[in-house]
Amino acid sequence: MPRTRPESSATGPVRLGPDARTALRPAGAGIDAGFWHTRREVNARTSIPQGPDLLEAAGNLHNLRLAAGTTKGEYQGAYPFVDTDVYKWLEAACWQLAQQPSLASDPTPEDPGADSGADPGPGGLAADVDRIIALVADAQRPDGYLNTWFQVRKGDQRYQDLRWGHELYCAGHLIQAAVAHHRATGGTALLDVARRFADHIDTVFGAPGSGRPIDGIDGHPEVETALVELYRETGERRYLDLAGYFVERHGHGLLGGEAYCQDRVPLRAAATVEGHAVRQLYLLAAATDLATETADAELRAVTERLWHAMTSTKTHLTGGVGAHHDEEDFGDPYELPNERAYCETCAAIASIQWSWRMALLTGEARYSDLIERTLYNGFLAGVSLDGERWLYVNPLQVRDGHTDHGGDQSARRTRWFRCACCPPNVMRLLAGLEHYVCTTDADGRGLRIHQYVTGRHTGHIEGADGGPVVVRAETDYPWDGTITLTVEEAPGDAPWTLSLRVPQWCRSYRVRCDTRPDHRPDHRHDRHDQDDAPAADGWLRLERTWAPGDKVVLELDLAPRLTAADPRVDAVRGCVAIERGPLVYCLEQVDHPGGGLDDIVLDTAHGLTLRHRPDLLGGVTTVLATGHRRSAPAGGWWPYRTVEAAGGTVEAVDPAPPTGGPAPGEPVELTAIPYYAWANRRSGSMRVWLPTS
Amino acid sequence: MPRTRPESSATGPVRLGPDARTALRPAGAGIDAGFWHTRREVNARTSIPQGPDLLEAAGNLHNLRLAAGTTKGEYQGAYPFVDTDVYKWLEAACWQLAQQPSLASDPTPEDPGADSGADPGPGGLAADVDRIIALVADAQRPDGYLNTWFQVRKGDQRYQDLRWGHELYCAGHLIQAAVAHHRATGGTALLDVARRFADHIDTVFGAPGSGRPIDGIDGHPEVETALVELYRETGERRYLDLAGYFVERHGHGLLGGEAYCQDRVPLRAAATVEGHAVRQLYLLAAATDLATETADAELRAVTERLWHAMTSTKTHLTGGVGAHHDEEDFGDPYELPNERAYCETCAAIASIQWSWRMALLTGEARYSDLIERTLYNGFLAGVSLDGERWLYVNPLQVRDGHTDHGGDQSARRTRWFRCACCPPNVMRLLAGLEHYVCTTDADGRGLRIHQYVTGRHTGHIEGADGGPVVVRAETDYPWDGTITLTVEEAPGDAPWTLSLRVPQWCRSYRVRCDTRPDHRPDHRHDRHDQDDAPAADGWLRLERTWAPGDKVVLELDLAPRLTAADPRVDAVRGCVAIERGPLVYCLEQVDHPGGGLDDIVLDTAHGLTLRHRPDLLGGVTTVLATGHRRSAPAGGWWPYRTVEAAGGTVEAVDPAPPTGGPAPGEPVELTAIPYYAWANRRSGSMRVWLPTS
Repeated sequence: MPRTRPESSATGPVRLGPDARTALRPAGAGIDAGFWHTRREVNARTSIPQGPDLLEAAGNLHNLRLAAGTTKGEYQGAYPFVDTDVYKWLEAACWQLAQQPSLASDPTPEDPGADSGADPGPGGLAADVDRIIALVADAQRPDGYLNTWFQVRKGDQRYQDLRWGHELYCAGHLIQAAVAHHRATGGTALLDVARRFADHIDTVFGAPGSGRPIDGIDGHPEVETALVELYRETGERRYLDLAGYFVERHGHGLLGGEAYCQDRVPLRAAATVEGHAVRQLYLLAAATDLATETADAELRAVTERLWHAMTSTKTHLTGGVGAHHDEEDFGDPYELPNERAYCETCAAIASIQWSWRMALLTGEARYSDLIERTLYNGFLAGVSLDGERWLYVNPLQVRDGHTDHGGDQSARRTRWFRCACCPPNVMRLLAGLEHYVCTTDADGRGLRIHQYVTGRHTGHIEGADGGPVVVRAETDYPWDGTITLTVEEAPGDAPWTLSLRVPQWCRSYRVRCDTRPDHRPDHRHDRHDQDDAPAADGWLRLERTWAPGDKVVLELDLAPRLTAADPRVDAVRGCVAIERGPLVYCLEQVDHPGGGLDDIVLDTAHGLTLRHRPDLLGGVTTVLATGHRRSAPAGGWWPYRTVEAAGGTVEAVDPAPPTGGPAPGEPVELTAIPYYAWANRRSGSMRVWLPTS
Repeated sequence: MPRTRPESSATGPVRLGPDARTALRPAGAGIDAGFWHTRREVNARTSIPQGPDLLEAAGNLHNLRLAAGTTKGEYQGAYPFVDTDVYKWLEAACWQLAQQPSLASDPTPEDPGADSGADPGPGGLAADVDRIIALVADAQRPDGYLNTWFQVRKGDQRYQDLRWGHELYCAGHLIQAAVAHHRATGGTALLDVARRFADHIDTVFGAPGSGRPIDGIDGHPEVETALVELYRETGERRYLDLAGYFVERHGHGLLGGEAYCQDRVPLRAAATVEGHAVRQLYLLAAATDLATETADAELRAVTERLWHAMTSTKTHLTGGVGAHHDEEDFGDPYELPNERAYCETCAAIASIQWSWRMALLTGEARYSDLIERTLYNGFLAGVSLDGERWLYVNPLQVRDGHTDHGGDQSARRTRWFRCACCPPNVMRLLAGLEHYVCTTDADGRGLRIHQYVTGRHTGHIEGADGGPVVVRAETDYPWDGTITLTVEEAPGDAPWTLSLRVPQWCRSYRVRCDTRPDHRPDHRHDRHDQDDAPAADGWLRLERTWAPGDKVVLELDLAPRLTAADPRVDAVRGCVAIERGPLVYCLEQVDHPGGGLDDIVLDTAHGLTLRHRPDLLGGVTTVLATGHRRSAPAGGWWPYRTVEAAGGTVEAVDPAPPTGGPAPGEPVELTAIPYYAWANRRSGSMRVWLPTS
């Protein structure tokens, strides 16, 4: 048995401070085989190692040298926040280093074939990190300020355009990267830079009467949650206070009162999520951090209310959020378009980051339900299977005849974006993914498993009879619903609780405990049996005096299913979606020759069948369904027809002419693939929601 | 009988040149009572007279003085095209003057109570026009160039930002205003300014090898069709040639190849309409003008193809076009969202202007069918009933719980916009509306009535037995389907054809001719009887030797009807719209207390009934229908539910809890109002398309 790694609470995002009040605490987890391991391997071997060259080619590193005065030339990039591409890449690289501690101190990997074996390329990942940190440090002004756009292009005219300048936003990502670097390596090179900048900000910004010259906020939240993390990493309470100041000053018109900038209404008074989706969610993550660290019950209630408003009325089936291309913002309740779903990849990431904080704070399983859904669908669709191409927006439909004008918001995957916020954001989430898997209960008497991966989870049972706990999970999830958990280490004779999340989508499951001879329960549980207490809140609690060798086998029913939406979601009236387990499925044009997708009708009377295709898209289980193509409607110039008049039902004004192609009613076999895998083959139309008549 | 006015072909938009080849030619028409007369009275008495003060307040006139050097101060307005607000207002005022010729020469109206009696305010409309024309003339550079943005803000750095600068776009609207002024008043003060600018442009722009320094186009088409009109007004062929040059140079990458700027593909190679809707349609109007004036059969075929593509796949039920807020552009085929319908008021106007040119060119009734639909719905919704407030975008739905952030694109009417393109555009179309009503046949043997208004239509029958024709139309359309036409003047004993458009929406009609005793046909026609030749192409042709006193009574069936869309219009699957005659109807929240609109289901088994409400919204016929409110769906945190799984149909995961409010199934009386009249009362939700289950 390999040596247990240290608890990831020490090395991942969200380390709780000493005064934090939560239901759950981060625990350690590993991912060493299976679905997410494969995706993380691609991240470690392709996406992250290619980062430095891409940042060099796009000019981000050049801009740092310009700011440092070590090179000459034109500033590169059209946005004032291009520094964050560097910072997010650094954060990703640091979480990656945390999994391969040898890399952190030795640029030559000792075991390049190891299970999380990134190929750091010449010089190694750690060397790249050190080199780029040095560029960042060189660019910093002596007083701590750092922003290449303003230093190079704006003659250091600081904080005069807080609405669009993104200076504090950039500071936030710098701080996040520095916290990651410090947690992963123990090094302070970047943390020192971040603290100097944070200290500088703390001398500039503050409420009227604070003695600080500027009472202001940034148009793009991010510094708030970063400052909480800096507080957690350093113990300096003034960073937490500064975070609180920024959070509370949103919504008071300091930026003109725009919802886009999260300035229309104070967070505590907000009724729903609104404005630019990423900005809203980064701000809410910070609010949850503050509620966590300060035991602010009102702020907690606000975050619970807004999470409910988002999830119940403004979230796509994929977990994606953000209905509008224009302003990248949330729409109205139940305004969830398909082809114009914005669902920015960064917004999916922000939703996951916020929901994780909510899961820790409240202990409720639904937050990890949403994380699961978003991870497998709205988030993962953002990166190609080969890790080299990206989607900025993640629509749920691409029409037949779609005209794609390219650009960042294309429905075709792109090597890198002009506004390259998403790719390094995906990298950092994937590199730190194991931190969203497992927690310990705040009372110290249990371990909870939030996400089903293959790997080794570690926690600590508190108390006199406590000690380390190690549970090994093995699963081929999401292709197979069986998860086998083996207790590898347990602290003695006292009972503790192993809690398993029964996903919200799961209608039935079975659990078997192979423990010592006196315990052999074997239950089949129905999700909706209200007497079935173990799963009523989504958690299946198994309290035992666990011993090494004890096994739990959880079998989740992965029968494919058809899903309908609340009837107020106008965009999908009369449609269903195919789902299986946590996966949302879609049809792609490439699998359906002989016609477009927009004429296809799903015949619900036929069943759904599964076919696992190891050859397809890196290995996916497809869902086969039966449909037919509608006859082509009216060939006239006007696409609307009278269906009923005062005199009763009438014929169509333009009756459908005969057409070529399959006759209506002739069955068409439909092959649905997981949504995350779309747009990895020939481009063409795609649909998640399928009409049923 | 009042004296017959001159043919409006002399005073309206689109006067054909001597070489034009068309099926129809503009004829004269008047509108002196009824629906459109009321709307035009508001335009003449409120909207147009308020223009100068609004242009003064917004700074447009100040900018002209700045450019002339007659005042000092800051440039006003954030866009380089604010001059066009002035030009479009001038065009509107000139078409208004054309109806009140006394105003053109005398600032004191002799008969302020006359039927088209605008209240021109102190000094009169003609004086306002003269005063503002003088400001425009003063601002012009000696070489003919005129653009206040570039003269005042950009140090006369001309034509260096053709993609965004709008210099030729502004020139186009100046030329259109000058043509209107000359046609309306005979004056040349503005025409001289416009010709100097056009002549200057003709020295600057041209194909490589032409000797002109710049081979370029403007990002926003408009100068093209304006130059054709200038050719028509002056007879100078080089203006037509210059228009042709600009039209043909679109789509060759001169502006980077963006669809937004109509630069992705040459028009002759285009398969569908795309990019910014107003830009596309202004360009297509110019292409139709060129096909008309040069008998270019290929270009005609292009315009017919693109009109069909627009109308059959990219037009909302209201006639509105433009699916996307982002880039204000056309979407994909059948991408016709409701709450996010952009349907800019200017795009409706552009569609009408283009379709009119197509109607003249081809003689086909469907172009006037679309004009009618757009006029009564997508266009007219753009102005409030009192003529003082405006909509820039015209959605087909405003949701319950809609958050309106205000601004130009608000769903609430606005006094004036930051980008004030729409209000003066509405004014100029309404002021010139009679020019879209009536034509003569190109062979000189008939008169065609395109739109049903109360007024006097005039034409000329050609040939030895020809002479003037006057037909008086009386109708309470669109509230009543009876149109009575009385021949007041006819040229002798030879037969000619009075053609009446039988609207595309009309399923049955009756026509009675009270002519001399030997003609008393009385037919009831069924629209879809293919043997009924008179209406097969939408034109009911009545060939007679007409004599004064002959009457034709056309009765169009105005039974209210339910309309469904092509099933590829995903946005309205499972929904119908209520229509009556040319009017699209909608529900407004204010008429449906006790709950929102998004839970309402229309019960199609119940009939539709009419109730005329002279008290409501200036007098409208409402359509009453019956519906019910759905029970509130699942109260859980996730708005999607499993409806069927491999094991068969299953219960909802979250069964609907009991709710307050009306029980489902309890009938709710629905009151539908004409769409054009929405947003004139308390703001709230609105729906055109209603779910039926």
